[in-house]
Amino acid sequence: MKERPIGLFDSGIGGLTVVKEVARLLPNEKIVYFGDTARVPYGEKSPETVRRFALEIADFLLECEIKALVVACNTASAYALQAIQQRSPIPTLGVLSSGVAACAALQEVRHIGVIGTRGTIHSRIYQKLLKESLPEAQVTALPCPLFVPLAEEAYWEEEATRLIARSYLSPLRAASIDTLVLGCTHYPLLRSVIQEAVGSDVRLVDSATATAQQVATLLGNRNLLRQEGTGSVHCFVSDNPDRFRTVGSLFLGRPIDTVTQPAASSPPLHI
Amino acid sequence: MKERPIGLFDSGIGGLTVVKEVARLLPNEKIVYFGDTARVPYGEKSPETVRRFALEIADFLLECEIKALVVACNTASAYALQAIQQRSPIPTLGVLSSGVAACAALQEVRHIGVIGTRGTIHSRIYQKLLKESLPEAQVTALPCPLFVPLAEEAYWEEEATRLIARSYLSPLRAASIDTLVLGCTHYPLLRSVIQEAVGSDVRLVDSATATAQQVATLLGNRNLLRQEGTGSVHCFVSDNPDRFRTVGSLFLGRPIDTVTQPAASSPPLHI
Repeated sequence: MKERPIGLFDSGIGGLTVVKEVARLLPNEKIVYFGDTARVPYGEKSPETVRRFALEIADFLLECEIKALVVACNTASAYALQAIQQRSPIPTLGVLSSGVAACAALQEVRHIGVIGTRGTIHSRIYQKLLKESLPEAQVTALPCPLFVPLAEEAYWEEEATRLIARSYLSPLRAASIDTLVLGCTHYPLLRSVIQEAVGSDVRLVDSATATAQQVATLLGNRNLLRQEGTGSVHCFVSDNPDRFRTVGSLFLGRPIDTVTQPAASSPPLHI
Repeated sequence: MKERPIGLFDSGIGGLTVVKEVARLLPNEKIVYFGDTARVPYGEKSPETVRRFALEIADFLLECEIKALVVACNTASAYALQAIQQRSPIPTLGVLSSGVAACAALQEVRHIGVIGTRGTIHSRIYQKLLKESLPEAQVTALPCPLFVPLAEEAYWEEEATRLIARSYLSPLRAASIDTLVLGCTHYPLLRSVIQEAVGSDVRLVDSATATAQQVATLLGNRNLLRQEGTGSVHCFVSDNPDRFRTVGSLFLGRPIDTVTQPAASSPPLHI
């Protein structure tokens, strides 16, 4: 069981920010990742559609004989985590609660900003969980729909991205938030632009590090950590493996071992 | 047969630029439109995936008993028009050849720029057709992938869009093109920003007007024009009908009569 890989998925390239942290913290682990590049982005789609897509991919990864499943997409965590947990026989977690836990661990949190896709923000799940963990804190949540395409297009530090960030985030700057949750796994790619737009005194919380910690604890508690051997990253995508390999490796800072597009008749490709 | 509607489809809201021109030129016609909002954008997807999506939607529209079918999406026209024409028993045309015909009708065309999605430009179909129609002209083609999300998000005249347009289009400005083909039905939404980026002396050609003309000719020749009665626009979408209605009506400059999301088991929703 220890030798089995950890499975993660996201709508596209964004979940690789979580893969990066898991690989850094647990360098011996084998990782299997699914990026739904044929149907990216998820953030503007309805709860029902996101749930259907997420369940298809969870089924596919479960068939890969993984030992833990991470929903490395905030929109899918918001809409589909419960449904996935109900059918998954292995430890299964989402990035959303990790981000909230990371916030709750901070000192002097008075006003938290949360940014995410339209889907994540409209689900109001971050707002609810943050209110439960930090009842004294004020929460202001905002959707930033263009951040996902900008991240996917590697527009990570462009002036246009800076302008869009300034426009999206000006209400948070005006509200003098002290903490900002990056509620989408794509957003760490735009970290420096986001930091500049909200001001250097605002703490940025991204769920990638917290999620990696949670995976380590979960596997450690069950004696499922792979103690030796070389780690690896194998990716499946629903479209355009070559482009995913190029941009993904650039982001990950290391080559991706394999990028495979399963046949169209495979479970996650009912598209 | 005359009473039947005209069917059009696109990946999302972009094809409404064609609907607008068809409705303006043929005000008595009933129009049925399908926007594949669950799977937008098409421009970064592979030929096989785009073809599968397009054939599903064509089948759905053919079951709506339409009298003509317009592929109001350049990426789908590039990859799927032939396959759709093979199975369609009614007149079926794409926007791509209309754009080329509109170019060929112009005087003094020496250097044509073509912009579109990655899919459309990489297919090289515009380049091939323009070379056939205007063998003396030089053609420079460029993908502009962020234009579709910017158009879908109604970032039509923002400074960020201006910067991205200037960056994408600077090679065309440097090359002193005289004519620019907007090779994506979303791009007319960004017309003023695009015109500014290439310079006011460059003629912009969009295929919407030319396509509407071609539809009128095709139906006229077959005595299929609806001569009287009020026109209408009925839309189907694969996701988020409310958002489509709002942004779509804003763009169309008139309310859309109905926006319906068919059941997930319907033909175009194998997603």
